[in-house]
Amino acid sequence: MTAIADKTYMARALKLAEKGRGSTFPNPLVGAIIVKNSKIIGEGFHKAAGKDHAEIVAIKNAHSSIAGATLYVNLEPCCHTGRTGPCTEALIKSKIKKVIVGIKDPNKKVNGKGIRQLRKAGIEVTVNILKDESYYINDTYFFSQQNKRPFVTLKLAQTLDGKIATLSNESKYLSSKQSLKYVHTLRANSDAVVVGTQTAQHDNPSLTVRLTKGNNPYRILLSNSLKIDSSLNLLKNNDDYKTIIASTEKSLKTFSHATNKVITWSLKSKNRQLDLHDFLEKAYQFNINSTLCEGGAKLASSLIVQQLVDKIILVTVPKIMGKGIESFGSFRINQLTDMVEFDKHYTFNLGVDTILVGYPKWGKA
Amino acid sequence: MTAIADKTYMARALKLAEKGRGSTFPNPLVGAIIVKNSKIIGEGFHKAAGKDHAEIVAIKNAHSSIAGATLYVNLEPCCHTGRTGPCTEALIKSKIKKVIVGIKDPNKKVNGKGIRQLRKAGIEVTVNILKDESYYINDTYFFSQQNKRPFVTLKLAQTLDGKIATLSNESKYLSSKQSLKYVHTLRANSDAVVVGTQTAQHDNPSLTVRLTKGNNPYRILLSNSLKIDSSLNLLKNNDDYKTIIASTEKSLKTFSHATNKVITWSLKSKNRQLDLHDFLEKAYQFNINSTLCEGGAKLASSLIVQQLVDKIILVTVPKIMGKGIESFGSFRINQLTDMVEFDKHYTFNLGVDTILVGYPKWGKA
Repeated sequence: MTAIADKTYMARALKLAEKGRGSTFPNPLVGAIIVKNSKIIGEGFHKAAGKDHAEIVAIKNAHSSIAGATLYVNLEPCCHTGRTGPCTEALIKSKIKKVIVGIKDPNKKVNGKGIRQLRKAGIEVTVNILKDESYYINDTYFFSQQNKRPFVTLKLAQTLDGKIATLSNESKYLSSKQSLKYVHTLRANSDAVVVGTQTAQHDNPSLTVRLTKGNNPYRILLSNSLKIDSSLNLLKNNDDYKTIIASTEKSLKTFSHATNKVITWSLKSKNRQLDLHDFLEKAYQFNINSTLCEGGAKLASSLIVQQLVDKIILVTVPKIMGKGIESFGSFRINQLTDMVEFDKHYTFNLGVDTILVGYPKWGKA
Repeated sequence: MTAIADKTYMARALKLAEKGRGSTFPNPLVGAIIVKNSKIIGEGFHKAAGKDHAEIVAIKNAHSSIAGATLYVNLEPCCHTGRTGPCTEALIKSKIKKVIVGIKDPNKKVNGKGIRQLRKAGIEVTVNILKDESYYINDTYFFSQQNKRPFVTLKLAQTLDGKIATLSNESKYLSSKQSLKYVHTLRANSDAVVVGTQTAQHDNPSLTVRLTKGNNPYRILLSNSLKIDSSLNLLKNNDDYKTIIASTEKSLKTFSHATNKVITWSLKSKNRQLDLHDFLEKAYQFNINSTLCEGGAKLASSLIVQQLVDKIILVTVPKIMGKGIESFGSFRINQLTDMVEFDKHYTFNLGVDTILVGYPKWGKA
């Protein structure tokens, strides 16, 4: 098999993997293809946690014997028994000849062990075919495995002059329909969305996916005081049991009677604020690989100050507000060189709005 | 002559006219072409005030007799004696047969009179060939003739979160080199640049054209108090005698001994602020058709509040400042619908910066 053919088949596996986007929580996106005599004889992707892994789907779908065939899979096959049996075992049993892997699985239960098991059984294994692509399709998964916390995307919708709401906290429907749809896509592709008290109370968002296809992410309210109405959409519309309230133990105690269906996380405090590191630690333990923070300004500033933002998405509407609630109003610098800059960034237009996507460059901590 | 040929020759006249950009103050850009037997026998453009008008340049440059020829000119020929004689007279003398005009000159000394004089002398005159293009090449000239005040462009360089300087007024070199060059082009194409006290004092700009070719615009310091150092670049670098100080009579009196080379305008006050309408009236009387306001925040906000901005150019650098001097910090609204919106706007990238150009939609005054 030529290197080009290997890449072509891996690209197909990646395309299949992509079909699971938004549905596989907490698992990564994986696609698999079985090739024999230069023909695809079976393929599949991982649809949801608890369902067959991609390799097993491909084996089951194969329309002829896979003995002597080659399997392409974008992530190292698992070797542990979770809700399903280990894929390595099934592959060894199937008498497959060769396994081509996009990238090693950094999960400590796998982390090269899957590859070693296959090789020990006499299966030829090649790793790092379309490695970059295999990384990016599961970038937040790799990030959280490496950093022991979820990837944090901060999204704010603001005016040209950097205001997210009027002084009286009016902000509903600030951005265009196209931008709102984009935000729903971001939600569908995130494990969890996070908002602070002010945003929950004033905007009363549902934080569900409505304007595009996709599953709802977990909805996390990060609130120290929990001074919120119990009739908020976040609490009311919780038929999928995906609302999480993260607060202090003390605040949760007084609030708990109204939140029986809601998941609660008790967080540590630091300087009378919720400890964001503890929050991200809890989210990681909950298997959340990616969080989309949708404001408000106070939470955004706290994340920035603590250098806990991995990606910023600024939706800027072509309007000028003058005085108002500032996007990053609690962030303070001493000199121009202290500004937050980006490693890389790009902009594009959605309707009349301009979207900036930037990856902050964090220097001295 | 076909209509298409007429447009082609007029397009050539417009292209010639463009060569005068930045040099013709206070005159508009004009180009002229003389055509005989489908051949261009002479052409020219207006280079500077006091020099020959485009029609005269074309007549003088003609390499054969222009009797019986057709002249194309983007603006109605003048019929009054200014620093040069009336063009209509020269055209009648030359026995030209036909004159094709892009657009009527709205200047009250012309305003159709030039066309009438030519017709009275038996010359065939066609008007409104490439009328829109003939308007836009001199849009600020037409604007000021119609509105009796200069066209006001407001340019601000700000961070993503709408800050133009740190709280301690640090802002030098906020934007990229490409954006600075763009700003110099804007200057070269404006009759005057305007700054307020804070910007003059803290940034100490020269407001000259250095990063691109072109003439310096008039440099106007709009300052109520005139609490500025007499060593500012604006005052020091004034070999071209183009620095103008606009202030109250009272402030000018105490400041005059240091400003002998500087032009001064005495302005009315209104609510303890300089009267911006009076300022624009004075600028108009000075034949300034276009002003580029380069800040700061206070002047920008005042212009916005008084709905005196015709075009906004926001240079946004991909950096986050947090607390700082807000771009439009003195502008206040009561509800979302009071925000400044645009009739039309577009964005483009320069280096790492994003430039927005917008034409504000002014409703209720």
